[in-house]
Amino acid sequence: MSSNIPATNRQWILRQRPAGMIKENDFECVEVPVRAPDPGEFLVRNLYFAFEPAMRGWLNDVKSYMPPVGLGEVMRASTVGEVIASQHEGFPVGTLVAGMLGWQEYATIDDTAGPMGAARPLPPGVDPVLSLSALGATGMTAYFGMMDIGKPSQGDVVLVSGAAGATGSVAGQIAKINGAAKVVGIAGGETKCKWLTEHAGFDVAIDYKAAGDNPNFLRDRLSEECPGGINLFFDNVGGDVLDAALLNMAENGRIVLCGGISAYNEDELPPGPRNYMQLVIRRCTMQGFILIDHFHRAGEAARDLSKWIEQGQLVHAEDIQEGFENTPKTFLRLFSGANLGKQLLKVGERSHGGTS
Amino acid sequence: MSSNIPATNRQWILRQRPAGMIKENDFECVEVPVRAPDPGEFLVRNLYFAFEPAMRGWLNDVKSYMPPVGLGEVMRASTVGEVIASQHEGFPVGTLVAGMLGWQEYATIDDTAGPMGAARPLPPGVDPVLSLSALGATGMTAYFGMMDIGKPSQGDVVLVSGAAGATGSVAGQIAKINGAAKVVGIAGGETKCKWLTEHAGFDVAIDYKAAGDNPNFLRDRLSEECPGGINLFFDNVGGDVLDAALLNMAENGRIVLCGGISAYNEDELPPGPRNYMQLVIRRCTMQGFILIDHFHRAGEAARDLSKWIEQGQLVHAEDIQEGFENTPKTFLRLFSGANLGKQLLKVGERSHGGTS
Repeated sequence: MSSNIPATNRQWILRQRPAGMIKENDFECVEVPVRAPDPGEFLVRNLYFAFEPAMRGWLNDVKSYMPPVGLGEVMRASTVGEVIASQHEGFPVGTLVAGMLGWQEYATIDDTAGPMGAARPLPPGVDPVLSLSALGATGMTAYFGMMDIGKPSQGDVVLVSGAAGATGSVAGQIAKINGAAKVVGIAGGETKCKWLTEHAGFDVAIDYKAAGDNPNFLRDRLSEECPGGINLFFDNVGGDVLDAALLNMAENGRIVLCGGISAYNEDELPPGPRNYMQLVIRRCTMQGFILIDHFHRAGEAARDLSKWIEQGQLVHAEDIQEGFENTPKTFLRLFSGANLGKQLLKVGERSHGGTS
Repeated sequence: MSSNIPATNRQWILRQRPAGMIKENDFECVEVPVRAPDPGEFLVRNLYFAFEPAMRGWLNDVKSYMPPVGLGEVMRASTVGEVIASQHEGFPVGTLVAGMLGWQEYATIDDTAGPMGAARPLPPGVDPVLSLSALGATGMTAYFGMMDIGKPSQGDVVLVSGAAGATGSVAGQIAKINGAAKVVGIAGGETKCKWLTEHAGFDVAIDYKAAGDNPNFLRDRLSEECPGGINLFFDNVGGDVLDAALLNMAENGRIVLCGGISAYNEDELPPGPRNYMQLVIRRCTMQGFILIDHFHRAGEAARDLSKWIEQGQLVHAEDIQEGFENTPKTFLRLFSGANLGKQLLKVGERSHGGTS
């Protein structure tokens, strides 16, 4: 067994808490020895890192739904890896596992729970990339946010912000699959907008970068596209986008608060939605949710999502960068809006059975 | 009949749309002839005007749940009056009626719907003052906001802002009647706070005016009083109060948005709740509502509220000013926080049967 165990593990640790926009040097690459697995443990080589905007929140030293990542700790992240040495009969060498193993090349772990549940074997035949994108945290977030919180109903006009992102793109399609009459996406740039309408089944895509100097661009475009109001808004962005949507909600509309990426890198919390009293005037509901509360139903979500993908009703996109050394740089892509679909980083090659 | 008909009706009309804080001279007192009722009509002499913060919103020239009051129009307001001349057999002389007859001494009307439903006879034995306070728009707003939107459940920790106001004071008591474990009110000044805990059954009253220069006063006081978090927040105020509450919500907490008086007199919309992303972190729901959607169930609300009052479970307070000439001045009391309980103005004496 020991012949399979490399000597050195590279890790990206949190060097300092970011002030404002994250920078690559908020993280530091360190080398530590790889620990051979004890009985009941196994050693995983990470193949892919997944990146989500929510990870930005874990870097702040504030109480939240998860403890912050500590200074000097390996950055927390969802990964898929391969078991390369094992003293656990449930995880033989060659097993593909998904878990929150963080920004490191190797992890020696057992099968007890991590922050998002224990590392688990990928079901046979599941594509590792898909397991981190449409079937991963972002796809599941879209699923539970739409199905349990937003509950699209027949004839709804649905708006999704961050629509070309990993969560938004899936959320919009789930609304359409479940009877929405019209799904409008907001995204940045022509490429993303084109992808939304030509590939992801959105009825309309609004390019917020086309606003120029017009502060009312989004508000007005939404009025044009949703003259009867928005019944359901799935918000990943916050800020001006949320304010523009509030002015276009239908009576009794629902706002699903999934995220607010526009503020994640602000040093001080920016002002909140100026138009929030529209919730009263229009009798709307705004509800937040977090994936971890729904994770016990991940199997159900995976079943539905897989079915929709197989049936061609749900398309998914990934932006796959390469190279462990590019980890922080790849994380930054989320906040410049560089990615279309799920942001991933390939950090290793599968060595046993099959290709990754 | 004509002997009962006075010659002149005084009215307070909207002279100009207020910029920022309303001023008395945004309104103008004019005299018009009283019109004798035609067949099917009756003439009402107003006895009391009721004042609500929401009336401030009706003065802005923006689309809302009701059309704005037009320039030169009589200011819209809930009133109670007495029929002093009638050609409608359902409304004989001496009948007490409630309706939105506005800031005027007399109104010649029929029984068709006004903006909040048609004027209706007060049920026999109902106190006119009570019909405008705990059984009026504000009491009903508290009732539907709590019973239908907030839905207090056994053991809830409930927070009410604007707690010594006409709506807040009733809302807090309704929560208590329906099983809340602890009801905390926020109000301005010792007198109001004392009334809340000594008379209105609130467990705790926090005097926001005691904050001094401490920007974290409210946040910290709420943490002390609600260490396990707020399950249900009934907000009449918005602004800093909403922000402080957001930092103290329990997981899966509910925020009932009833009003946001802190911003009603701002020339430009102030920033929204900076901490709104706590709705995500704490998985909370924030929902707005408006009384008019629930008005068809006013009978049910009146029955429950009357019962609670009779049983001594619900106390009510009114601040009754006097004199038609003091109408705008009395309206301003709402926004300086001068009133404890329902702000009313007595503008006439009952002339037939009973005292008012």
